[in-house]
Amino acid sequence: MKGGSAMKSREKRKDVLLKLEKFGRELCEQIEKGSFPHITMPSRSIENIFYNPDLRQYVLGNKTVRRSAGNIRHLRPFTHLVWMAYFTHELTTNQKTSTLRDVFYSAQAYDISFQDQDESDSIITDLETVLGYTREDFNVFPEESSAVFGDLTIEYTVPNYEGKRLNLTSHPDGVMIGPALTSADFVETSADKVIAIEKGGLFTRFIEERVHEKFNAILVFLRGQAPRSTRYFIRRLNQELGLPVYIFTDADPWGMHIAMVIISGSANAAHVKELTTPDAKWAGVWASDIVNYKLPNDKLEDVDIKRLHELMRDPRYKGEIWQREINLFMKNQRKCELEAFSRYGLTHIVDAYLPQRLKEVGDYGE
Amino acid sequence: MKGGSAMKSREKRKDVLLKLEKFGRELCEQIEKGSFPHITMPSRSIENIFYNPDLRQYVLGNKTVRRSAGNIRHLRPFTHLVWMAYFTHELTTNQKTSTLRDVFYSAQAYDISFQDQDESDSIITDLETVLGYTREDFNVFPEESSAVFGDLTIEYTVPNYEGKRLNLTSHPDGVMIGPALTSADFVETSADKVIAIEKGGLFTRFIEERVHEKFNAILVFLRGQAPRSTRYFIRRLNQELGLPVYIFTDADPWGMHIAMVIISGSANAAHVKELTTPDAKWAGVWASDIVNYKLPNDKLEDVDIKRLHELMRDPRYKGEIWQREINLFMKNQRKCELEAFSRYGLTHIVDAYLPQRLKEVGDYGE
Repeated sequence: MKGGSAMKSREKRKDVLLKLEKFGRELCEQIEKGSFPHITMPSRSIENIFYNPDLRQYVLGNKTVRRSAGNIRHLRPFTHLVWMAYFTHELTTNQKTSTLRDVFYSAQAYDISFQDQDESDSIITDLETVLGYTREDFNVFPEESSAVFGDLTIEYTVPNYEGKRLNLTSHPDGVMIGPALTSADFVETSADKVIAIEKGGLFTRFIEERVHEKFNAILVFLRGQAPRSTRYFIRRLNQELGLPVYIFTDADPWGMHIAMVIISGSANAAHVKELTTPDAKWAGVWASDIVNYKLPNDKLEDVDIKRLHELMRDPRYKGEIWQREINLFMKNQRKCELEAFSRYGLTHIVDAYLPQRLKEVGDYGE
Repeated sequence: MKGGSAMKSREKRKDVLLKLEKFGRELCEQIEKGSFPHITMPSRSIENIFYNPDLRQYVLGNKTVRRSAGNIRHLRPFTHLVWMAYFTHELTTNQKTSTLRDVFYSAQAYDISFQDQDESDSIITDLETVLGYTREDFNVFPEESSAVFGDLTIEYTVPNYEGKRLNLTSHPDGVMIGPALTSADFVETSADKVIAIEKGGLFTRFIEERVHEKFNAILVFLRGQAPRSTRYFIRRLNQELGLPVYIFTDADPWGMHIAMVIISGSANAAHVKELTTPDAKWAGVWASDIVNYKLPNDKLEDVDIKRLHELMRDPRYKGEIWQREINLFMKNQRKCELEAFSRYGLTHIVDAYLPQRLKEVGDYGE
C-alpha cells in the first residue's frame, strides 16, 4: 500500500490546532495595534460558487467577505466565530467530539446565545472556510454514522486507544465509521478496491458471500445518502491507499445522486476539499441494467421525473455515463432496486452481476 | 454472569429448523391421508389482540384462523405460506440472511408472485405466528441496524466466524448489531447494567467519557426507534445476563415511546414474545427533568400534544411514572433533547445527571 505521502491523523490535528491558534493570535495582534479585530474569508454566497470541471467539484471564487468588530452589524457573527474557534480548540485539544446540535447547546454554557441551530451551523461553516478544514477535523461529527467491513488494519489515535490496532474484518456485521475510525491511521491492507453499497441488506449479503475475499474489496455501507464522515473515509481509502472506489445504489435518480455526492460533493461544501472522491465510479444499478438483466422494476413517479430534470441541468452530470443513464431513465420511465437481483436467487448479484460489472467499469471512463 | 439457562443460538436454530420441518411433514401427512392440507393458527385480527398487564405486553387471544388448500379463497395465502416456510428453511439451513424487501424479490426466483411487499410481509408474520419465533430466528433481518459498545465477550455462530470471539470494546465507535451479533453467544461480561441511548452523538459522548467503565455498563445506540434486532439484543442482555436496562431518550412523547416499544413491544408484535424487555426502565430525559435541571427547551407542537393524548389512552402507559410524566408534559407544554445538558458543559450529563438518575431509578418502580 502507498500512504507515505498521507498526512497522518496526529499531524493533521496538530495543524488544525496551529491554525486555530494563529487565527486567535492575529486577532490579538490587531487589538494590540489599536485596530478593531477583523477577519477576511472567501464568500460562500451563491454567485461565488462555481463548478470546477478539472477538480470535478464546486469551488469558491475570488470574492471575499470581511467581518470586523468595528462594524456593529458584524459584531454578533464575529463574536460567534471567535467563540467557535475557542470551543473547537478545546474540543480538539482534549480530543472530545461534539455534534452540530450539541455545539448549539454547548454555547449556552459560555453565555453565548445562538438564536437557533441554523445560526450556529452557519458559524461552524464559517470556521471551516477560515481554516480550510472540515468540521470533523476540529471534532464536530455528524449524528449519523454508517459502517465498514474488510481487510484493513487501522491504528487508533483517540485517547485510551492510542496505538491499538484493529482489523476491520473483526466483526462480520461491520464496525461503525465514527470519530475513532475517521481519525485512525491506515496500517495495512490486502484490498485492491473499495465497494460502497447504499443498502444495509446488500452490505450484509456481500459480507456473507465473502465479496471482500472474492474481489479483494473493502466494503462500505452508505446507509442511503452517506454521512460526511463516511464520504471523508472513502476519500481517504482512495487517496491514501490508492484504491479505486465503486459505488452501487438503486437504479433511480436518488441512487445516482448518492453516488454523485461521494464523487463530486455538494455546492454547500464548495469551501472544503476533503469530502470528495472525484475518481470514484457509479457502478450500478444503471437504467440500462434494468433492461439488460430483465430486473423487476417500478414506474418512475412524478417526483422521480422532476428530480431527473434537475440532474440534467446540474453541471456535475455532464459526463457521458450520467447523460446516457439519465436519458435512459427518461426514455424507459422505469426504476429498480438493488434487491431486484434476488429475482435470480440470493447470490446472483455476487456471482454474476458484480464480476461482470467490475470488469466493464474498470475502464468505462466518464 | 448467569446464562446457563439461556437457549444457545445453535440450539435455537436447530429448534427453528425442526419446527419448519414439522410444519411441512404435517402438511404431507394430511395429503397422504387424502385430506386437503391445512393449518390452524392464532388470529392476529384487532379483536384478538389484548394487552396483558402481567406479561406487560400485547398478546393474542383464543381466536384462531384456519387456512385450507380446500378453500379456493385460501389457496393463494396458503401456497405463499408453504413457500415461505420452504424458503426460510433454506436460509436458516445455509445460514444466509435476507430482508423483508429481499424476500419479496426472491419469491420471483421460484415463480411465486406477491402482488406487493405488503403481501409478502404479511405471510412472514403468518410464519412467525405459526412457529412462535421472530423472523430474525429464521434469518429475515431488518434493513436497519444500530450499534453497541461495552465489556461483553461474544462467540460467533455464523459461518467463517464460528467459535471466534470478540470483545465489544474492540472498536470505540461501536460495532453493528446485525445477524452475526444477534446470533452470537454471550461468553463473559463485567458489566452490571445496560444503558440504551436514542441519539448517536450521546452514544459517542458516553464512550468518550468512559461511561462503560465508570458505570460498568454496556452501551446500546438505539438510532431513534430501535430496529427489531436491537430490541431482541437488549432483551437477551436482560434475560440471559440478568442485566437491568436503562433507556435514555429525548424528553418528548416520541422519546417516551422509543422506550415503551423496547419495554412492552407493539400491538403488531402480539404474536411473538422475544421482542420485549418488560423490566427495562425509561430513565430520562423526563418532563420533570426539564424543570428540575433548568434545561433549554422548546414548546410542544400540536403534533406532540396529539401524540400525548394517544399515549394517555394506551394501556401500556397505565404505570405511575408514565402517567406522571404525561401529565407534566401536558401541564408545562415543554419538551427537550438529550443534548440540552451540554448547556452545563460537555460532561455534565455524565458527571452529574447520570449518576443521580441511576441512583433514583434503581428502585423507582412502575
